[in-house]
Amino acid sequence: TSPPLQTDRDLSIRNDTTEQPWLYWSNYAMSNGGGVASSTTHLLDFLEEPIPGVGTYDDFHTIDWVREKCKDRERHRKINSKKKESAWEFTKSLYDAWSGWLVVTLTGLASGALAGLIDIAADWMNDLKEGVCLSAMWFNHEQCCWTSNETTFAERDKCPQWKSWAELILGQAEGPGSYIMNYFMYIYWALSFAFLAVCLVKVFAPYACGSGIPEIKTILSGFIIRGYLGKWTLMIKTITLVLAVASGLSLGKEGPLVHVACCCGNIFSYLFPKYSKNEVLSAASAAGVSVAFGAPIGGVLFSLEEVSYYFPLKTLWRSFFAALVAAFVLRSINPFGNSRLVLFYVEYHTPWYLFELIPFILLGVFGGLWGAFFIRANIAWCRRRKSTRFGKYPVLEVILVAAITAVVAFPNPYTRQNTSELIKELFTDCGPLESSQLCQYRSQMNGSKAFTDNPNRPAGPGVYSAMWQLCLALIFKIIMTIFTFGLKVPSGLFIPSMAIGAIAGRIVGIAVEQLAYYHHDWFLFKEWCEVGADCITPGLYAMVGAAACLGGVTRMTVSLVVIVFELTGGLEYIVPLMAAVMTSKWVGDAFGREGIYEAHIRLNGYPFLDAKEEFTHTTLAREVMRPRRSDPPLAVLTQDDLTVEELQSVINETSYNGFPVIVSKESQRLVGFALRRDITIAIENARRKQEGIMLNSRVYFTQHAPTLPADSPRPLKLRSILDMSPFTVTDHTPMEIVVDIFRKLGLRQCLVTHNGRLLGIITKKDILRHMAQMANQDPESIMFN
Amino acid sequence: TSPPLQTDRDLSIRNDTTEQPWLYWSNYAMSNGGGVASSTTHLLDFLEEPIPGVGTYDDFHTIDWVREKCKDRERHRKINSKKKESAWEFTKSLYDAWSGWLVVTLTGLASGALAGLIDIAADWMNDLKEGVCLSAMWFNHEQCCWTSNETTFAERDKCPQWKSWAELILGQAEGPGSYIMNYFMYIYWALSFAFLAVCLVKVFAPYACGSGIPEIKTILSGFIIRGYLGKWTLMIKTITLVLAVASGLSLGKEGPLVHVACCCGNIFSYLFPKYSKNEVLSAASAAGVSVAFGAPIGGVLFSLEEVSYYFPLKTLWRSFFAALVAAFVLRSINPFGNSRLVLFYVEYHTPWYLFELIPFILLGVFGGLWGAFFIRANIAWCRRRKSTRFGKYPVLEVILVAAITAVVAFPNPYTRQNTSELIKELFTDCGPLESSQLCQYRSQMNGSKAFTDNPNRPAGPGVYSAMWQLCLALIFKIIMTIFTFGLKVPSGLFIPSMAIGAIAGRIVGIAVEQLAYYHHDWFLFKEWCEVGADCITPGLYAMVGAAACLGGVTRMTVSLVVIVFELTGGLEYIVPLMAAVMTSKWVGDAFGREGIYEAHIRLNGYPFLDAKEEFTHTTLAREVMRPRRSDPPLAVLTQDDLTVEELQSVINETSYNGFPVIVSKESQRLVGFALRRDITIAIENARRKQEGIMLNSRVYFTQHAPTLPADSPRPLKLRSILDMSPFTVTDHTPMEIVVDIFRKLGLRQCLVTHNGRLLGIITKKDILRHMAQMANQDPESIMFN
Repeated sequence: TSPPLQTDRDLSIRNDTTEQPWLYWSNYAMSNGGGVASSTTHLLDFLEEPIPGVGTYDDFHTIDWVREKCKDRERHRKINSKKKESAWEFTKSLYDAWSGWLVVTLTGLASGALAGLIDIAADWMNDLKEGVCLSAMWFNHEQCCWTSNETTFAERDKCPQWKSWAELILGQAEGPGSYIMNYFMYIYWALSFAFLAVCLVKVFAPYACGSGIPEIKTILSGFIIRGYLGKWTLMIKTITLVLAVASGLSLGKEGPLVHVACCCGNIFSYLFPKYSKNEVLSAASAAGVSVAFGAPIGGVLFSLEEVSYYFPLKTLWRSFFAALVAAFVLRSINPFGNSRLVLFYVEYHTPWYLFELIPFILLGVFGGLWGAFFIRANIAWCRRRKSTRFGKYPVLEVILVAAITAVVAFPNPYTRQNTSELIKELFTDCGPLESSQLCQYRSQMNGSKAFTDNPNRPAGPGVYSAMWQLCLALIFKIIMTIFTFGLKVPSGLFIPSMAIGAIAGRIVGIAVEQLAYYHHDWFLFKEWCEVGADCITPGLYAMVGAAACLGGVTRMTVSLVVIVFELTGGLEYIVPLMAAVMTSKWVGDAFGREGIYEAHIRLNGYPFLDAKEEFTHTTLAREVMRPRRSDPPLAVLTQDDLTVEELQSVINETSYNGFPVIVSKESQRLVGFALRRDITIAIENARRKQEGIMLNSRVYFTQHAPTLPADSPRPLKLRSILDMSPFTVTDHTPMEIVVDIFRKLGLRQCLVTHNGRLLGIITKKDILRHMAQMANQDPESIMFN
Repeated sequence: TSPPLQTDRDLSIRNDTTEQPWLYWSNYAMSNGGGVASSTTHLLDFLEEPIPGVGTYDDFHTIDWVREKCKDRERHRKINSKKKESAWEFTKSLYDAWSGWLVVTLTGLASGALAGLIDIAADWMNDLKEGVCLSAMWFNHEQCCWTSNETTFAERDKCPQWKSWAELILGQAEGPGSYIMNYFMYIYWALSFAFLAVCLVKVFAPYACGSGIPEIKTILSGFIIRGYLGKWTLMIKTITLVLAVASGLSLGKEGPLVHVACCCGNIFSYLFPKYSKNEVLSAASAAGVSVAFGAPIGGVLFSLEEVSYYFPLKTLWRSFFAALVAAFVLRSINPFGNSRLVLFYVEYHTPWYLFELIPFILLGVFGGLWGAFFIRANIAWCRRRKSTRFGKYPVLEVILVAAITAVVAFPNPYTRQNTSELIKELFTDCGPLESSQLCQYRSQMNGSKAFTDNPNRPAGPGVYSAMWQLCLALIFKIIMTIFTFGLKVPSGLFIPSMAIGAIAGRIVGIAVEQLAYYHHDWFLFKEWCEVGADCITPGLYAMVGAAACLGGVTRMTVSLVVIVFELTGGLEYIVPLMAAVMTSKWVGDAFGREGIYEAHIRLNGYPFLDAKEEFTHTTLAREVMRPRRSDPPLAVLTQDDLTVEELQSVINETSYNGFPVIVSKESQRLVGFALRRDITIAIENARRKQEGIMLNSRVYFTQHAPTLPADSPRPLKLRSILDMSPFTVTDHTPMEIVVDIFRKLGLRQCLVTHNGRLLGIITKKDILRHMAQMANQDPESIMFN
């Protein structure tokens, strides 16, 4: 008799996943040696020799953080106690104490170096779509023209060394023929890169697709996905990220950089015996964001706010260190050639005025609406991809999206250029040296197109055409981003979201600027915006818009503001940023509280217990626990009157991951908890090594063997695999407390008692199912265990 | 028979404290209405009417955070469920949802305003020691001379409106007579201010003394000190802080500003029914540091790293908001008159070189040594003050220290001036406009004292005399700070520590600078420090030294670096700062892991379970729980066979704060936990309101009344006060897990079971005592409960 779910079957997990064609659970990536926990000794019983294999986890199982932490401390204590024995042991203890720092340093170094490589390679390949540097193939457009002496500052993009494809192939730089040739080559390269990227991902490392942040969140919450952070994933993700960015798809490299950094952290942590993966991964996330934006403090806060599950103070310090090392390495590599750490360095010179809060808050509303819309649309599209046959042709899908993107993007200069460059241009304030179309204001002095120092400007024809192009770019980006995020290539969401916000913000900024120029005697502008005064900075609006849109999508708050604050380096603009980000979050939350990462976690059915979401129902533990009233009784083991045969039949007939051990069937008093995997391994081990263990051998979990008849076979002692301190709650405990315990302690399961008698069990999955039920969602959407 | 400590006596607490003359526990401050938790309804039983008073706490008791959170959620749910009933209820729910934000906004506003007031008043009173502004009494020295047209930029401190006391009284500005007059007036004012401060503190609000951070940490960890955050403390602390700073004692206003902000937060949170004190206090700490340094992000990280016990993400966001509002208000008040937010705004223009890491790390070593030395010396002095008769004359002590400080400080210009100004001067790089003695370099051109643009400079006589004075100031500050921190006036430690570090740093910086000047052909300097190049910035050394010393004393890490980073606004110098702060922390930790705040918490015996310190021993729960083997059995209540008389005798004979309720003496199976206070109130209440309750009435905790003989009196039902979900662990649970549970969930006590039978109880105090014992400290040093 197999009662319904108590903790889940190993088998049912594999079945679940093979139904999803795109998850590749049992694929190549599983054999590449990655994994989250593989400590091999069970430490709660110090007297007996550990049985090899006891205490490890299966793939797609949940980690019991409390036990893991105990194991780690035990290892640490062992090393420490031997410290004084010899110089060698002392060195070992020193090494142990420093290995945590060493790992985060190495992670920081590797993340910084990889980020630099990716930046340089992506820049070069991106420019390859347009042309090639004849003097040195390996130079990108900008570097190619640095060495040229013939170009003036205003035309610094044009130099004889750099040849567009039309010039190379047709020998002519102007005219419709060369335009079509360039157009064709642009599409050709975009498709080639996209095709290469998706093929590499599909063949070598399926886990390399997507942004990786939802999975990293899940892994940090204590779920094992072997190979997700392995060396193959790292290698393929690094290569395909370059290709995906260069292909011109509407995606960014920030999320994947976090994944890359976490892979580095995971791989380095294998070099050290110390169990501190959780810490290393938190630090690696910080390093990833740090190099993505050049914002180390923002990276730490991102890791704290968005990624990490437990964030002890030691981790804070190490995360900061990793973020800093990574940022430092990146600055030394200097991929942008401007010796600036940050991606979009801007400096504004005018303060903002109180009235401007109105457009800033409007941008916040736009960001919130965009975030809510994007999450719904993207999730609906991803669900369709999972559920219909369409999802079976990922390569075709990528090619299709890349082709549409390339075809539509080329004619519009704002979509043709690199998205990061677009954001940078939108952020930048118009100065006298700025040659951008966005800065073609009519001079007040003589009506010519020349620039003047007078900053309050009526828009010229360049600005008007730029506005139209920006509007088209906005619509294009909005549509393409929805279809791009979730493709089987590495894809980040930060840059596209920021681009959308920056475009909207710049449009609003220019509109307000023109309004202030033509109506400077309005009561709104009268006091602070005189004729000839520089009172509106459209670049600031772009920045606020970018923050608002990113906030709407990810629902990050403080970390986002800090990241953007680090970009500009001025406390001056924190208030506008906060106003916009808060509005964006509140507007977004009104349509649904999940950020995009949580939504994708739910879509994939990962067992992720969100630390942010509050449990607000009044249910008690007894209403959530298994078995329910209609269920068969709980499968339990008694402490000293089972035989090996009976034990094996319990294990074979049920599929639970663990069994409570009780004193006797009558008293139902709880003794401990034994894991299925450990029992199986222990019986196997005993059969091989201990003589006299037969099918009718008595199994006992007690300290001393029970008194047996003289002719009975040698009993099997299993106390060493018994967890004698299982967590228990009473049946009257409110679920909000139970959820709190699971979250804060990182439990895998918890036993329920009533007046000292064992009543049932609650697993993480039970809680997630219950929460889904309370939110009127399908409880069966939570998979794995 | 009263068995030894299980949970502590109310009485013994009062006894403990009255032995400490300076703790004033039963003094005026207790009656001023402050306090931490006073929610009045017990919510675990929804069916019965709540008994008034049940669920509240006594003074100096520990809060059970889990219950408090449940209460808060229940209240929230109630309001939410009524939301749709009427427009009024809807408004109430909206108000409830926003009240958290409102409280932190008000807290931020109030903290900013008070900080501005304190800054202005302290500046004015500080200058009063030197002289007075004749044209307008309420101007400080700087403001007085703003209006003067006669002064040149170089002599901007001297103007006819500002009269020193000698000029006013003797009518002469120069000469030994006037020097003595000024000296005398300086001492007179310093003593007056100090006397006033200590008297105000002693008479009106004893809790206003010290920095307040140890107590706030303890309160946030869940301990009730009524009145510590009350309105009297706020008022007196604000006034006496100004006096103490102006008296010239070696103390700062940063720690007390955190206390002031927390008082504001606490008072405002009384205006709202919402229970969110923990959150509000965390936010208030952030606001306090934010206004102390003008570093909002640093404030949030300080609150996270140093002050807060639980730091959920909601708190992060609200803390950031409060910090920002406070900083904004302070900037609007503009107390420093430079429209800068930060206390020590500096800008450096030269990068640092790798070789300079050596002096930076040396400064870190100095900081660590100073921190370790200071903590030991200060704690030893404070312990002496507590234990000897000397501590009974606090006013005399303050006067004495103030007199010594004033007498020694006046002759040395670096100790005479305001410490903040000293730090600012030390941080500032020498520019052509700098008139400070520290910048009197000999020009390379003509040997005159005139300044040149050439920044690589041989030191002039001014620099040499400044070096001597700085050395004397360093020794003076080190000695005086040890005796000052712990005096019965408000006193922060940040500014003195930073001053010591800045002095040491500047000395090292000038030494390195001169070394580089005279030996610029050494291999160390050869590559990057050519003749005539500006390669060493002594101001940067001062900043690094300040961070290192503050780090050594407080053992803060990330927040400290971020605070200093916000001061300079450049990512460039984070690496030197981190190198110094990390070195300082490691060196300090080698001498003892406690920071000054933890050391003071331990000195005062507060029941504070540090979240940072790791529990590294292998003890099990059964070794820590009470009763021990030699103790009498645990005092328990049975669920349905006690009479009111028996219950009362159990309560009267023992002094525990709570009693486990079991099924029967034989089975020892646990039903729940009832608090002493709740039982007493419930019996009182029943006697007054319910008829027929007699001494031989049966008391039952079960759902249904037991079957009783017909003639027995009416039974007393106490289920409503029974906590039916007490936390339990098994006796085999490792203490490291138990400590983790207590920390993360904020428990007050936890019951210990073995195979389903109740065995004993572990309270927070038991854990603290056990930890003290393991660390070879006196377990009886932990007081209260």
